[in-house]
Amino acid sequence: MPSPSRKVSESAIRRLSIYLRVLERLEREEELTVSSQVLADRAGTTAVQVRKDLSLFGSFGKRGLGYAVEPLKKQLWAILGLSQRWKVALVGAGRMGAALFEYPHFRTRGFEFVAVFDSDPKKIGTRWSGLRIQSAKVLEDSLRENPVEIVILTVPGRSAQEVTDAAVRAGVLGILNFAPVEIKVPSGVRMNAVRLTVELEALTFALQMEAGRMLKVKRQRG
Amino acid sequence: MPSPSRKVSESAIRRLSIYLRVLERLEREEELTVSSQVLADRAGTTAVQVRKDLSLFGSFGKRGLGYAVEPLKKQLWAILGLSQRWKVALVGAGRMGAALFEYPHFRTRGFEFVAVFDSDPKKIGTRWSGLRIQSAKVLEDSLRENPVEIVILTVPGRSAQEVTDAAVRAGVLGILNFAPVEIKVPSGVRMNAVRLTVELEALTFALQMEAGRMLKVKRQRG
Repeated sequence: MPSPSRKVSESAIRRLSIYLRVLERLEREEELTVSSQVLADRAGTTAVQVRKDLSLFGSFGKRGLGYAVEPLKKQLWAILGLSQRWKVALVGAGRMGAALFEYPHFRTRGFEFVAVFDSDPKKIGTRWSGLRIQSAKVLEDSLRENPVEIVILTVPGRSAQEVTDAAVRAGVLGILNFAPVEIKVPSGVRMNAVRLTVELEALTFALQMEAGRMLKVKRQRG
Repeated sequence: MPSPSRKVSESAIRRLSIYLRVLERLEREEELTVSSQVLADRAGTTAVQVRKDLSLFGSFGKRGLGYAVEPLKKQLWAILGLSQRWKVALVGAGRMGAALFEYPHFRTRGFEFVAVFDSDPKKIGTRWSGLRIQSAKVLEDSLRENPVEIVILTVPGRSAQEVTDAAVRAGVLGILNFAPVEIKVPSGVRMNAVRLTVELEALTFALQMEAGRMLKVKRQRG
């Protein structure tokens, strides 16, 4: 895997991941090469930004020829850590958990669910694609015995921190938090959060601001 | 609603939304006041940042006394556009769509699903909580007749742009995109994306980097 020539920002990593999405789509459209301009356009950024981001990991493109789609896709795949399989435990077997468990784009990227936990007695012992749902009470012991690298958290807010602490004690390296609260992890453990209400509120904030501006214009014209 | 004293960055809006989460939790814990330090700590930022973000909308706290939890919560609620109801159409009645449709934190925030669309003939005509699932083919006409402000998109990648274009023609103001592709909207329409693979890849990138560093240290120590 190419090592970056300097520290990579969180936003650069996210853009690399978006470039990968775009390249996968271009591949399905049977495009062989792509210019930094087209790649930028489809990723919602600028050609300069694309070239800068990719240059972090060496030079991929050829001047005037653009990037070869499939090799660049493979490089990004490796850069983003997708060349290895990642064992994932899902904690919270509700609707959101089920949706993520079945999410095809996780599976094709080498994320393998090897354990599911829940605290609902009606769910414990039932199976999802052959995997027996375990009690959240045994999470720490179970993950010590059968370690995973990543935990995806889809539990209610009130139990999110407790589950996180148990997972961290068991040696989990990364947590993707969907619970609607902020959780804390010690340094050395990575945590990303998908904050669904935050995403929707970023929309409504903007829509309300826009509506306020329109009203003001109307009044001034009044 | 208080108007911001200057332009508010996307990241500031997201932090406001995170403060709201934290305040809701503090309220459940029956806390009456909170210092900027504690609020910062629980939101994963600094006290200076908290004060700066909140000062955009006027002065809320009292020196030495901190912020009153419930009034600040209400203010943020208004600032983020949650004092009004927002009509939402869901496009894509799969597992992810079902999870979002049932997501309790959307409902308590005044987001009201008033239409569901899908392209699967087996789903069209069935009901979710009394709402008849409509054919995605009639989306444009249906949203013209019964307008919504927001569309939540949980369709496969291949139909995401087409559905977006139809929703935009029907006058939708904001789109929250869960489809695993980048979509384009004209200026004047807001679009936020929840990129699930991107979030997971931000984790694996970091974990792989960390593993690389550990290996290097190990080798150097030989």
